[in-house]
This record gives sequence, structure tokens and C-alpha cells, in this order.
Amino acid sequence: MDNDALDSLAVEQYLKSLQKQICGQFEALESTVAFEAEGWNFKDGGGGDTRVLENGEVFEKAGVNFSSIRGLQLPEAATVQRSSLKNKPFTATGISVVAHPLNPYVPTTHMNLRFILVGDEAWWFGGGFDLTPYYGFEEDAVHWHTVAKHACDRFGDNRYQEYKRWCDEYFYLKHRNETRGIGGLFFDDLKEQGFDFCFRLIQSVGNHFLPAYMPIVKRRMNMNYGQRERDFQLYRRGRYVEFNLVYDRGTLFGLQSKGRTESILMSLPPQVAWKYNWQPERDTPEFELYDRFLKPQDWLDINGD
Amino acid sequence: MDNDALDSLAVEQYLKSLQKQICGQFEALESTVAFEAEGWNFKDGGGGDTRVLENGEVFEKAGVNFSSIRGLQLPEAATVQRSSLKNKPFTATGISVVAHPLNPYVPTTHMNLRFILVGDEAWWFGGGFDLTPYYGFEEDAVHWHTVAKHACDRFGDNRYQEYKRWCDEYFYLKHRNETRGIGGLFFDDLKEQGFDFCFRLIQSVGNHFLPAYMPIVKRRMNMNYGQRERDFQLYRRGRYVEFNLVYDRGTLFGLQSKGRTESILMSLPPQVAWKYNWQPERDTPEFELYDRFLKPQDWLDINGD
Repeated sequence: MDNDALDSLAVEQYLKSLQKQICGQFEALESTVAFEAEGWNFKDGGGGDTRVLENGEVFEKAGVNFSSIRGLQLPEAATVQRSSLKNKPFTATGISVVAHPLNPYVPTTHMNLRFILVGDEAWWFGGGFDLTPYYGFEEDAVHWHTVAKHACDRFGDNRYQEYKRWCDEYFYLKHRNETRGIGGLFFDDLKEQGFDFCFRLIQSVGNHFLPAYMPIVKRRMNMNYGQRERDFQLYRRGRYVEFNLVYDRGTLFGLQSKGRTESILMSLPPQVAWKYNWQPERDTPEFELYDRFLKPQDWLDINGD
Repeated sequence: MDNDALDSLAVEQYLKSLQKQICGQFEALESTVAFEAEGWNFKDGGGGDTRVLENGEVFEKAGVNFSSIRGLQLPEAATVQRSSLKNKPFTATGISVVAHPLNPYVPTTHMNLRFILVGDEAWWFGGGFDLTPYYGFEEDAVHWHTVAKHACDRFGDNRYQEYKRWCDEYFYLKHRNETRGIGGLFFDDLKEQGFDFCFRLIQSVGNHFLPAYMPIVKRRMNMNYGQRERDFQLYRRGRYVEFNLVYDRGTLFGLQSKGRTESILMSLPPQVAWKYNWQPERDTPEFELYDRFLKPQDWLDINGD
């Protein structure tokens, strides 16, 4: 263990201010709807503040959830690789953001930051952000990963590459042999170099989320689209549901810890379609998404070739 | 073990003829679309025949899948409670039916029958059928359970009650505290009284499926409905997705055994909606579904009070 004092309250305050900032910037794009906030209590202690905006002009659904729950024992989703922590009381504090835009040219995004404290001394941070486009734009992908790299730059030479690779591995649908989107950053079990270092790192990730996402939203939100693009968006949202319900550890953690179901599942898209055995035709923008974008790759050409 | 000879081929033939019969009766209600069949091979041996009908006047999507796959080792979803069978080669032969009608007054249904053979001698049957209405009709529920009981009648006094209770327990969404629908029959690990007895029982369940479902379809398929009923149907279909991807052992078995993804996930509805924190208003038909129908109960009053 390190010598820094744990400051759970500072983490909580930072995540709450980030929640407010994200809701503010999303809401600024809407003229007819606003976030609705709902406070809730967790059965064993603590609770949350779930903010959801629905049926906006830009965001068909956006959820920004803050929670800090105390539990009597860590759920299985968190102890599979941490068996020494089984049955111990814990506090989990986090923010989780999912935005499902209306316009199919605007990508869906997800951001999460969390701080877990188990018993009196074990702790770690986790989190990241990732982007799920329906139609691929190379300049968006490069911008997204450039900002992701900036978020990591002061925290070690390989930080971005490491968290970028982790993201590609985590947001992967084995049964489809596809990445969920074009990735970003993902990390877990972060406790190196002491609390202060880790807390600064997650703040950097949190502070870079809006600069990574908002320029893409603004660039794409007024593009014209028709039924074809809407249909493809609804179809691709099915993959999002498959990932979240089959693989996502955050969702499983929430359901297993008997959290507030509506807050956990606010990540699910407002409308979704499944079409049996559908494949995009070659040489279409839909085909290009699979062929060019949904494969892990170096978007920044940082290996210099 | 019993002395009956295992007859895998007879099981296969029965399930194939049942597939044909179900497709025929579903298709007879449609005037513009038909089932499309796709044969496929499984990586380690065997394969399947997936038949799907989409965008019908009665069935927005219906899938009737037959498969008989050989695998090198049983997936985890099948060995959690059968650890002695870990890592053994197996053959899994089954039929799986899911129908998502277009009219919200027609319930969704699911039927499955399966025969698992592990190594040279361990075997069991499993299966059942269950009904998921969007709007509750007591006469439909009573009819459904009456036929379910008939399917079990020649197989022991408590067979229906036992499989009915198992169905209520299995098709249960813990995170929602709701049953998936009004239940029906569910059983697994069936190997009592020898192969012939078990095979006759699953044939009886299979043969009672259409008499249980089709009269309800015909009674409801021409009822008038509007956007309100359609919206509720799409919303409730979200629960179906949640169940299948989070809890259903058949789905997990399929994904873990690296089966054909499109055949496994043909069970997912064609269109679905999630609405944050939505609740039906009191004294509406939607409220009645939760209040009156989505709770395990004795539909046949067979305890005589």
C-alpha cells in the first residue's frame, strides 16, 4: 500500500461535478427537453442520482448516473479475479454515462469512472470511455483517439497504448467476432503509484471525455439521413444490447449487487431492431463500418509507419 | 441406467417432423411471406436447419430451429450442476421455437425440446413451452395451462404441477421481480423410468404445443389495436431480451459452445424499446398485466378451492 491518504469524499465531489458538467453540455444542444434527476437509496447504504434525458432533438436517450453504494459483500462480477476479497464489505462510487443520439451519423458513447474500496484498505479505480459509431468517419476516429491519448499523456509513456488495447479487448463481442465500436480507453485495478496519482489520472480521463465527444456530435448532428440509416442504427444498437447484457461487468455487477435496475439498464438504447441473418452489401457505408472500423487498429499511427 | 435402447435417430426424426408441422401451421396464417430455411454445419460435427419467417401479417418474426450438434466438451452452462461431465464429448439434439406476433393482443411463445447425450451413456431430456402475453386474457391463460396439463396427464399425478412450478421459477427476471410471462412447462435432467418413457413424454409436450398456442393466436390476431398497444408490446419485448441474454441457459449454452450466433439469437424480437423508469398507470390493461398475470398462480384451480 502507499502512503497517500485515501480521500473518498474528494472522489465523490469530483464525479458529481463531472456529472453536472456533462448534463449541462448535453442539455445545451436541446431546446425542448431537459434531464430529469431521480435520487435513490441502496438497500445496504448509500444511493445515487440518476439523470436521464429522453426524446431530444440530438439525444434520443442520454443517461448520466452518479452512485455511491455500500454493500455487505462484493458481487461475484468483481471477485472472479480477486478471490481474497470475497464476502467483504465495500463502497463503490462511480459515474456512468451513455448517450444514444437520434441522428445515425452521431456515434453512441459510453464513459465510466469508478472507485472501489473494500474493507478498510483495499481499493482501486477503473473506468474509461469508448465510441460506437454507426457510420465510420476517419477524422472522428482520429480525433477521439487523439484526445484519449492526451488524457493519458502525463501518466506514462505507454499509458494510452495499454488502455487503448485493453478497451479493444474488453468491448469485444466474441459471438459476433466484432469490436463494439472503435474503442478508446479502458482500465481496471488501477492502484499503482498511490492514491493521488490514480485520482489525478481518472480526473484526466473524466475531463477529456467532453472534448473527445462533443466536437464529433456537433460535426454530425445536422447531417441528413433517411430510413436506411435509421434502420441500420436500430440494427447496430442490437449489438450494444448484446454486449451490455451478455458481457459487461458493470451491468452484471449492478444486477448481482441488486442495484437499482432502471439506473443499471438506462444504458440500453430507446429503440432497437434485430433482423435475422442480415449482412450489409459490399461497397456500402454499412459494409465499410464492419470492414474498416470495427477492427482494433492504430488510429494515431503512433508506431510511425 | 435403464435397459431401454437409446434411439437418438428416433428423437431426431420426431423433432424434424415437429419442426415441419409447426412451420406449416404458422405459415398457413400468412399470405405474403413464408419460412426461409438455412442449413448450417457445426464446427466439431453435426449442424442444423434454421427456419425463420419475418414481416408476416400475423408473425412479425417466427423462428423454428432444429439442430443436432456434436461437441468436444460440454459448455459451462450445462456443467455447473453436472461437474462429473466436464470435458466430455456430447451430442445435443433439439428444437427451439420462438414466435413474436405483430398484433400486441397475440402473446409471444417459446417452445424447446432437447436431448443431450454425453460420452457413451449419460443422457437426459429437457424442454417445455411458455407463453408471454402483452395483454392478459384469463381464458387464454386457462386454455394454455389446460393443454399443458393434458400434455403431462399420462406421466404421473404431479407432473404438470412440478413442471409448471419449474417453469415459473425458471422464467423469472430477478432484477425486475417479474415472471417473463404466464409460464407453462419447464423441465430438465429428465431421465427417470428409462429412455422410452422420457421420449414419450417429450413427444407429448411437443404434440401439445400447437393445440395450446394456435387457438389463442386465432382468437386474438384480428383484434384492433393502436399505437398505445404497439408501444407497450415493444416495451415489454425488452424484458424478453433481458431474460434471454442475462439468464437463459439455452442462449448461454449456444454462445458458449460457439454455436451459430444467428440461430441462437433468432429468439430476439424484431423491434424493441426501452423507456427509462416507465410504469403503467393504475387501472389500465397494462397495469393489469403486471398486477394480475405476471405472478405465479394456479390457473386451473386444481387445488379445488
